Amino acid sequence: MASHRVGSLAERLIMHSFRNDYMEGAHPRVMDALVRTNAEQQIGYTEDPWCMKARTAIRRAIVDSDSKGALRAANIAGASLQVEFVSGGTMANLLCIGAALRPWECVIATPDGHVNVHETGAIEGTGHKVLTTDDVDGVLTVEGVDAVMRAHEMGRNHHMVKPRMLYLSLATEFGAVFTAKQLADLRSYANKNDLLIFIDGARLACGLASEKCDLTLADVCAAADVFTIGGTKNGALFGEAIVIRNPAIQRYFKYYMKQRGAILAKGRLLGVQFATLFETTGTAAGIEEAQGDEAMYFSMGRHSVEAAARLKDVLVRHGYDSFASDSSTNQLFLTLDNDTADDFIRAFDADLSARPDASHTIVRMTCSWATTQNDIDEVERMLAGAEQE
Amino acid sequence: MASHRVGSLAERLIMHSFRNDYMEGAHPRVMDALVRTNAEQQIGYTEDPWCMKARTAIRRAIVDSDSKGALRAANIAGASLQVEFVSGGTMANLLCIGAALRPWECVIATPDGHVNVHETGAIEGTGHKVLTTDDVDGVLTVEGVDAVMRAHEMGRNHHMVKPRMLYLSLATEFGAVFTAKQLADLRSYANKNDLLIFIDGARLACGLASEKCDLTLADVCAAADVFTIGGTKNGALFGEAIVIRNPAIQRYFKYYMKQRGAILAKGRLLGVQFATLFETTGTAAGIEEAQGDEAMYFSMGRHSVEAAARLKDVLVRHGYDSFASDSSTNQLFLTLDNDTADDFIRAFDADLSARPDASHTIVRMTCSWATTQNDIDEVERMLAGAEQE
Amino acid sequence: MASHRVGSLAERLIMHSFRNDYMEGAHPRVMDALVRTNAEQQIGYTEDPWCMKARTAIRRAIVDSDSKGALRAANIAGASLQVEFVSGGTMANLLCIGAALRPWECVIATPDGHVNVHETGAIEGTGHKVLTTDDVDGVLTVEGVDAVMRAHEMGRNHHMVKPRMLYLSLATEFGAVFTAKQLADLRSYANKNDLLIFIDGARLACGLASEKCDLTLADVCAAADVFTIGGTKNGALFGEAIVIRNPAIQRYFKYYMKQRGAILAKGRLLGVQFATLFETTGTAAGIEEAQGDEAMYFSMGRHSVEAAARLKDVLVRHGYDSFASDSSTNQLFLTLDNDTADDFIRAFDADLSARPDASHTIVRMTCSWATTQNDIDEVERMLAGAEQE
Amino acid sequence: MASHRVGSLAERLIMHSFRNDYMEGAHPRVMDALVRTNAEQQIGYTEDPWCMKARTAIRRAIVDSDSKGALRAANIAGASLQVEFVSGGTMANLLCIGAALRPWECVIATPDGHVNVHETGAIEGTGHKVLTTDDVDGVLTVEGVDAVMRAHEMGRNHHMVKPRMLYLSLATEFGAVFTAKQLADLRSYANKNDLLIFIDGARLACGLASEKCDLTLADVCAAADVFTIGGTKNGALFGEAIVIRNPAIQRYFKYYMKQRGAILAKGRLLGVQFATLFETTGTAAGIEEAQGDEAMYFSMGRHSVEAAARLKDVLVRHGYDSFASDSSTNQLFLTLDNDTADDFIRAFDADLSARPDASHTIVRMTCSWATTQNDIDEVERMLAGAEQE
Repeated sequence: MASHRVGSLAERLIMHSFRNDYMEGAHPRVMDALVRTNAEQQIGYTEDPWCMKARTAIRRAIVDSDSKGALRAANIAGASLQVEFVSGGTMANLLCIGAALRPWECVIATPDGHVNVHETGAIEGTGHKVLTTDDVDGVLTVEGVDAVMRAHEMGRNHHMVKPRMLYLSLATEFGAVFTAKQLADLRSYANKNDLLIFIDGARLACGLASEKCDLTLADVCAAADVFTIGGTKNGALFGEAIVIRNPAIQRYFKYYMKQRGAILAKGRLLGVQFATLFETTGTAAGIEEAQGDEAMYFSMGRHSVEAAARLKDVLVRHGYDSFASDSSTNQLFLTLDNDTADDFIRAFDADLSARPDASHTIVRMTCSWATTQNDIDEVERMLAGAEQE
Repeated sequence: MASHRVGSLAERLIMHSFRNDYMEGAHPRVMDALVRTNAEQQIGYTEDPWCMKARTAIRRAIVDSDSKGALRAANIAGASLQVEFVSGGTMANLLCIGAALRPWECVIATPDGHVNVHETGAIEGTGHKVLTTDDVDGVLTVEGVDAVMRAHEMGRNHHMVKPRMLYLSLATEFGAVFTAKQLADLRSYANKNDLLIFIDGARLACGLASEKCDLTLADVCAAADVFTIGGTKNGALFGEAIVIRNPAIQRYFKYYMKQRGAILAKGRLLGVQFATLFETTGTAAGIEEAQGDEAMYFSMGRHSVEAAARLKDVLVRHGYDSFASDSSTNQLFLTLDNDTADDFIRAFDADLSARPDASHTIVRMTCSWATTQNDIDEVERMLAGAEQE
Repeated sequence: MASHRVGSLAERLIMHSFRNDYMEGAHPRVMDALVRTNAEQQIGYTEDPWCMKARTAIRRAIVDSDSKGALRAANIAGASLQVEFVSGGTMANLLCIGAALRPWECVIATPDGHVNVHETGAIEGTGHKVLTTDDVDGVLTVEGVDAVMRAHEMGRNHHMVKPRMLYLSLATEFGAVFTAKQLADLRSYANKNDLLIFIDGARLACGLASEKCDLTLADVCAAADVFTIGGTKNGALFGEAIVIRNPAIQRYFKYYMKQRGAILAKGRLLGVQFATLFETTGTAAGIEEAQGDEAMYFSMGRHSVEAAARLKDVLVRHGYDSFASDSSTNQLFLTLDNDTADDFIRAFDADLSARPDASHTIVRMTCSWATTQNDIDEVERMLAGAEQE
Repeated sequence: MASHRVGSLAERLIMHSFRNDYMEGAHPRVMDALVRTNAEQQIGYTEDPWCMKARTAIRRAIVDSDSKGALRAANIAGASLQVEFVSGGTMANLLCIGAALRPWECVIATPDGHVNVHETGAIEGTGHKVLTTDDVDGVLTVEGVDAVMRAHEMGRNHHMVKPRMLYLSLATEFGAVFTAKQLADLRSYANKNDLLIFIDGARLACGLASEKCDLTLADVCAAADVFTIGGTKNGALFGEAIVIRNPAIQRYFKYYMKQRGAILAKGRLLGVQFATLFETTGTAAGIEEAQGDEAMYFSMGRHSVEAAARLKDVLVRHGYDSFASDSSTNQLFLTLDNDTADDFIRAFDADLSARPDASHTIVRMTCSWATTQNDIDEVERMLAGAEQE
């Protein structure tokens, strides 16, 4: 691990922050759409035409991505998918879990699952326990789930909570992804054991863009009872789409949304944004070129992941090669000695992620649709400059 | 009540909708501010400089409006006020109530209180009962509250819920307001009986602009333990500010916000909007002129109320003078025979409010910052035209 | 109303208290059974042989009472009924409601329903709203329910709670009962409107024993999705049986019981008691003779109701004839001037029930399985004695 | 580990079950007291004279046990202790936690804590998360707690739950105990970090009777904000006493009890039992002699622990010496090969506790106040007999 020249980094602040992927407002095209539609009078609570357009666009994106026939195999019709919009990720998570479970049921997640650690007990606030596996990098496995299930007598002992839902993130909190094989195995296990699957897609675009992820949007939809399509971290001003495949979760979902304060009065804001993200094609991804008629939602994901890959090359080239997770998406987790970590945090506005031991710190550097080649070049220039001193 | 010429109204759709006060996006100045700051990289979760500016602006607006010395009398320092921002009204309501109460405590509201009727049991969803008085027009009274308190043995019988908070709306669901005297009486009663006061200000700007309301923002703040300043219905793209005066509610409020999915990742969006609403002065209110250095938040309220007053004049002049509530703000509740009501709903996109009996309908017509003199003139032309047929 | 001689009553305390129907411990036969089985080692949590016996006895009592074919008509097999035991009434109520409803669903009750007034918000504590009708004497009616349903758009508007369950008490809080016709009408309305029916049978034995009640236990079972059979107020040391007919409520009920702290470790205590109450026949009801092979659970109900009828005769004979409710069971609600009420409360340990106006008080006098003819005679002697002074 | 002769054990069922410590009803003296008071008419809801006597007896037992001055040191007056009674342990646990915490606060427990594993999510059902340490044998340590606290930024980050209460069991689920030093260290840590301490005393009598436990009842009271005194597992028919020292938890505790269905209508049953357990002295403990004026509650604990010690001697003598936990109380956890475990389960009605690996089983054998020397002798005879075959 490089460490000899970090001292001087601390004084060199670059303009771009690598802290996280929601530092900016919206992608300019999304902002334009909001401005363009601002004076329209529309009915509220996501019942407006823009939300209808966005729902249609998302359903079509799912169906059109079904290159492997996952939807057909699972007998899923695009028209049967319910799509709702909410303002943020914690809200989306608690809604999907709370609307699906009965009071005595619980969720199984990895220890680092967002619902387990970073939502101030939001799931427990809906009355449900979160059980955790021993899995690493946030990648839930059949083995991990099965151990929890056995410890809970497969849900058949009423003196313990009944596990009823698997919580997965794509990409995970540590930037990892699932393969089609892994997801199929979890689905198969779930089917055999009366478990639902919820996939938190706060960073779905980046997950799907990972070269290690052979899943399409249709695959995700076919595997999940309910999943989210994150907007906040992928170019929207704010907002997450929730796609509900399981009819039992669909039926009264809007009642639960309303009760939890999740239906935006001017729901059109979410409709305009998601319609734009899924209907605008041919948008240059920035670092990468747009691919044919790919919707900008996916282009931005590819851009973010490619930017992170280039940033990783730069870091490794300069000796920073101790990564704390097997991330293949837009986040890099770098283990550094504490002093170097402090420098990275100040110089690049990197995020302090964890302190694995007394002398080391894990910092996170995140790329987004807004990260440019120039931003990455600037990191390289600074690292090179530090070495020369 | 006029009724002889309504048949033909049904075919005359005017452009402007009087359905509610959140049909449009944001006031152009608010939208401009969002566009202008869009590329900035800011820290998340309402910890950014824009939210700090907005908090300061709101605190100053409160302090500067203290013409009668209410804050001084209550020994309230502006700096001690906590200001938080959330995306919507139901969320604001459930947060303010849920964060303040212990499990066995409950809220007292009027039967038509938003928290009692139109939030799908959001308050009960936090575990708390809503008790209702017999008050009319949404105006909670000491007499109404006292009857409930006596029926619950003043909260001293542990076999019944303990009333702990009064829920008021300014303006009320029916467009009515409170006077300084009424609010002072409720505060006095509350102090004697260990009750908190929460004022739902979803339509606060209109309430304060009413000629029947002799309250200032400072008076509201001095009377309430916690209150909200509605943005959604007064020119913001979305968002409500929550002002917390009571230290016991302040302390862990953000934990509860996070747990309930209420902290917006890009909190800066709310900061930019409220900073604009409370810092932009001299903005023509539209129908009315701006008053000196009045912030646009208040100008828009005055505009909405004045527009409704003019609309009321038009309606009365044409014989529609049977109003179902004593509204002095931006909403008019008109009792019509069912056929006429249908016409109003189609012609003006009026809102069906209630069906008091088999042959009558109450329709609501709402004015907002976006309602122009021309829109009102168009209503008058249509009513006049209908009479000539 | 008699009033001229009450002053001296205050000094004459009789031995028996008419305060309520749970002043004593258990009926001696129940106590004997507990003593007899005390040394047995039994498995816990209501899985023991005594609970199995009690379940069988209750199922048989239901089936055997089906003189009118209600169970057959509803296609209900006795074996399909799930019977659980808990320690008290508020617990039984919150379990039956909480286990049946989804978060956005609510209960409809009369204003005086036990769940609405006297459980410190237990139902709201499970997250569910209680909506109230305008019905009197606690007798829920189709008209009352329908008005609430219409105000909530028949449950089809997700901006309001979805009514999903009717809460009835047999007997009601005011001692009234339902007829077979009334219950059939509610069931029919419920079927048409996707509503469940829960019958709180804390005083079921008295309800069934009323001469105004033409229902059998089988009728109650056929009409309800879930109902309770109260032990606490009818001779048990403590405990309520819950009979669940609806399979959707049955399935995970014990998980919810455990979560709510409702499964008694030494569940055998409840089994022993209910087995005794439903298997012991030929027990003299006390005031009345036992009827053939009637189980003591029913005999005690008849006893209590007959005792109250005799007490009522005594009261009326002495001029106390202003009753506040149309009770035909074991409770009498007497409207008295405040001074007389104070005397009754002191002399007979009557219960202060309500203060309808400034000068009157409603007192409740309750008879139970433990009330003897001698206790009633003593009341009469005192009233007669007071008159002579 | 002995294993050669277990095959034949399977056919030899002894009369006494070692499955758990709540197989019987009540200690005969407790049962006698219930019978003796059965006909009394008493006011309900634990407001009766028996409950008052029991409260006084428990307060006195606490004060009288203050041999080391722990109460004086902590400035605790016996009269300031609130004592409540409920029917079971899960209920007691959820009440003590739910009444003390605000929605965003959570409990820290060991992984095997009863509240974490065996209550079907009762604590999460009240909205609170349970965080777990890495501690073994159920003995919470400062080190274990501190690691959790650090991972949660000492409760200062509103994106995570705020740890607010430590949950300890005395004795633990695995029969272990705390020393005065361990408890003092936890209290000291709690004081520094704004944490409450709740001690689950379902098996308190056994914990205090352990030779490894140098705590008195007064020490427990001084260390805990709230603790329970288990009756169910120590000779009561049913029931747990809750002792609340912290005034903030005391104040509205009965409201919460009522809301949760925890106030027994015939509260006198609990009063009679606890008055008997704490006022009856000189009762032979059975195996041991009564010590002077020791209340039977403590004698029974000593009896249970001594019985287990003798049983352990028997087991070890016959080669069964692989114990899975360091129990010094009334439960023994024996690791056996699966076949031998099956035999023990059938022969002694031992409890299957866990399956640590594919070929081994941990069985639990529990002694209680009802276990006699003869029962232990019978075990020895059987083990000896098996060896001879």
